[in-house]
Amino acid sequence: MTQQKMFNLEQSPLLTDLYELTMLQTYYEHGMTGESVFELFMRKTPNRHFFVAAGMETAADWLENLQFKPHELDWMKQTGLFSQAFIDQMATFRFTGDMNAISEGEIAFPEEPLIQIIAPLPEAQFIESRLMNIIHYQTLIASKAARCQLAAQGTPIVDFGMRRAHGGEAGLWAARSCYLAGFTSTATCLGSARYNIPPAGTMAHAFILAHDNEDQAFERFARSHPDNVVLLIDTYNVERGARRVVELAPRLAADGITIHGVRIDSGNLAANARKARQILDAGGLTDTRIIVSGGLDEHRIAELIADGAPIDGIGVGSNVDTSADAPFLDSAYKLHYFNGKPRGKHAEGKTDLPGQKQIFRRKNAHGYLEEDLIALSHEIHDGEALIAPLMRNGKVIPEHSTELTLDAARNRCATAIQGLPKFLQTLKSQSTVYPVKLSGELQKMQAELKERATAD
Amino acid sequence: MTQQKMFNLEQSPLLTDLYELTMLQTYYEHGMTGESVFELFMRKTPNRHFFVAAGMETAADWLENLQFKPHELDWMKQTGLFSQAFIDQMATFRFTGDMNAISEGEIAFPEEPLIQIIAPLPEAQFIESRLMNIIHYQTLIASKAARCQLAAQGTPIVDFGMRRAHGGEAGLWAARSCYLAGFTSTATCLGSARYNIPPAGTMAHAFILAHDNEDQAFERFARSHPDNVVLLIDTYNVERGARRVVELAPRLAADGITIHGVRIDSGNLAANARKARQILDAGGLTDTRIIVSGGLDEHRIAELIADGAPIDGIGVGSNVDTSADAPFLDSAYKLHYFNGKPRGKHAEGKTDLPGQKQIFRRKNAHGYLEEDLIALSHEIHDGEALIAPLMRNGKVIPEHSTELTLDAARNRCATAIQGLPKFLQTLKSQSTVYPVKLSGELQKMQAELKERATAD
Repeated sequence: MTQQKMFNLEQSPLLTDLYELTMLQTYYEHGMTGESVFELFMRKTPNRHFFVAAGMETAADWLENLQFKPHELDWMKQTGLFSQAFIDQMATFRFTGDMNAISEGEIAFPEEPLIQIIAPLPEAQFIESRLMNIIHYQTLIASKAARCQLAAQGTPIVDFGMRRAHGGEAGLWAARSCYLAGFTSTATCLGSARYNIPPAGTMAHAFILAHDNEDQAFERFARSHPDNVVLLIDTYNVERGARRVVELAPRLAADGITIHGVRIDSGNLAANARKARQILDAGGLTDTRIIVSGGLDEHRIAELIADGAPIDGIGVGSNVDTSADAPFLDSAYKLHYFNGKPRGKHAEGKTDLPGQKQIFRRKNAHGYLEEDLIALSHEIHDGEALIAPLMRNGKVIPEHSTELTLDAARNRCATAIQGLPKFLQTLKSQSTVYPVKLSGELQKMQAELKERATAD
Repeated sequence: MTQQKMFNLEQSPLLTDLYELTMLQTYYEHGMTGESVFELFMRKTPNRHFFVAAGMETAADWLENLQFKPHELDWMKQTGLFSQAFIDQMATFRFTGDMNAISEGEIAFPEEPLIQIIAPLPEAQFIESRLMNIIHYQTLIASKAARCQLAAQGTPIVDFGMRRAHGGEAGLWAARSCYLAGFTSTATCLGSARYNIPPAGTMAHAFILAHDNEDQAFERFARSHPDNVVLLIDTYNVERGARRVVELAPRLAADGITIHGVRIDSGNLAANARKARQILDAGGLTDTRIIVSGGLDEHRIAELIADGAPIDGIGVGSNVDTSADAPFLDSAYKLHYFNGKPRGKHAEGKTDLPGQKQIFRRKNAHGYLEEDLIALSHEIHDGEALIAPLMRNGKVIPEHSTELTLDAARNRCATAIQGLPKFLQTLKSQSTVYPVKLSGELQKMQAELKERATAD
């Protein structure tokens, strides 16, 4: 397995699709190294009214450090698929291009470029697979988590989902994307360690089961973690669990220890929370918080809130970290400009939006989003231009590096969500769609592309 | 970002849930280090008749190398959540226990332990989150891919899904899990490099769009990759693309270059494949293979095959790498034995299967699976015992290390799928369920647990 570990998962350029390399060999052979513009965007996705743009920090970091190591070049050689001239070329391959992007945490809609890469064709082409892998998942999860935030109406949410996230990187990125969208903390230690997200967590059912009785488990935990006492009360019976908490509280209080909360992880959460609240209140533990978890998503959160269940905190896991109702978005990374010409696919009646673009966002007098206009990047229109420079010549622009922090993205997201028109702040499917218009120039270019493609 | 990269994603013990650490501190404080048995299993999952056990190699490798590095201990300290005595304890923490498992690639059913950990309680507890993260996803994808294999009835399948897999590790593991289940190759270079899976791939639409016309794109690619000529013919119009392939073929043949295949990635794939086949055949290219891709899953593959579409290869992506119809399984890792006593959760009418268990699989005279029996591990029954030792005292048992190779798992999976009863080889939901019975002793232990839990 030593050989396997030579390849660093997070940084290896071999985390790509083979066709990126086969295409590159041909591009280099024919000197096709002129400037190209690729755009990464999402097509329409069921169950989502909007996207939260995410992954820009990871993408920029990856692009800055992209290079082939000797054992990676060796692999290319071993495949027998590439010329030595091309392998030599890849030894010095770097990303030297520009990246423009919607700011991380900002709201985006279908067809709007999230990322724009302006670079020599082989560079812009090569980065496709991993760039998509980074932006797609983080945007997917930030968008899902934002729906949970809207549903929770201010009740704090914690991400518990690492175990069933799809691999470790997903667990890590889910922690970041959920926090970006407004969650208060993560159970994933590495998420906390890497991104400075507050960590959260206390005990599993196994902890209770490993003790001969529930009382003992509760008391031992509380004395071991006097500042972080949240007790899991549903291993056997929620009401009995709550009564044991009430019995234990005075003994702990005598030693200055407060029971901060209880967690309920199964059954009818609203009913169980009510029963527990009643018992805790009757026992004088009116400040002890009730945290619920277990199979929650935005719809179940909305039900709990609508039901007025006495819930002070929410843990979400698999449904959010896998975006279970829409486990992937219809993401695309397309060549829209090369060698002085707009480009785009036209087939089966669908025509891409060609050219390098800009998004102009217009807000009403109350600060709510009113309309987006997608135009060509040289056009000037009213509204805030959303796509801004982030990297130049392969490096993050120093003045923009602070905008890439998670805290900046999280603040931006909170503001952006508040600015959503009310019909986008609900979970229900809508007949009204947020208006994203195309400029006259862009429509003209699209029509010309269609004509050219049909004639070709 | 330097600080961030200190934490190795694949190996960091901080890729865990915080509660594993909080629980451990209490276990150590109270000397709760006796032998425990945890079992990892899947509960019933909609849309799946069976699971393909996967992830054992990754899990064993991770367990063998599990240890805290100084900066990881520093993080623990910085949180302020842990005692110095506990942090010191974790500095020497290793996994020293045993792991038994169903062999990778074998078929498994709900409630059957895939992995059994026998170790001091803190060790067995600590590994929960990442062990689940490893086994859950790889089993999820191997199970999904096996359904595609059944649907494809021998037509080769390639995994294209990395870009929309959930992070890089998912893309990498999907490559492995799909190959394990019978796919022939992967587009993911790192999957190929790490696991010796044949790589596959040629060109994207961007390659065609970067040229001024399709002919030129085809010819340049073919001459650049004379041994790997598969041309993407649907950028503008499939029929015109196919005719261009026919026109190009003699020019290439004059230089000894064969067009191995064409790929169609959009539209009505069956109809497009038929049109292309007709044009290729009429042009004498009867050996040129047709590969289709674009939004495929096992159901769409089954339709294409039932339709008799002339398809020689299939590319699958997002639907498989995210297991889109069931993006997570109801996986569990539960304490079933500790300090000489069977353990298990009993709440809301559900009682775990306690105790350390074994699965006995019975086959009929034709080699088809007939019935599984879950029993306690000391029981002796007819049938093949599926749970076998894999690690002892924290190390893979040398004689078993060859069983952990991907090729061994792939062969095992192919045999296992052939041995599935016919009603499990279809995609449709079934009223008949594969019989998984519980031994009398296990039922008795479960009843006692229920009684004890209710009385407690």
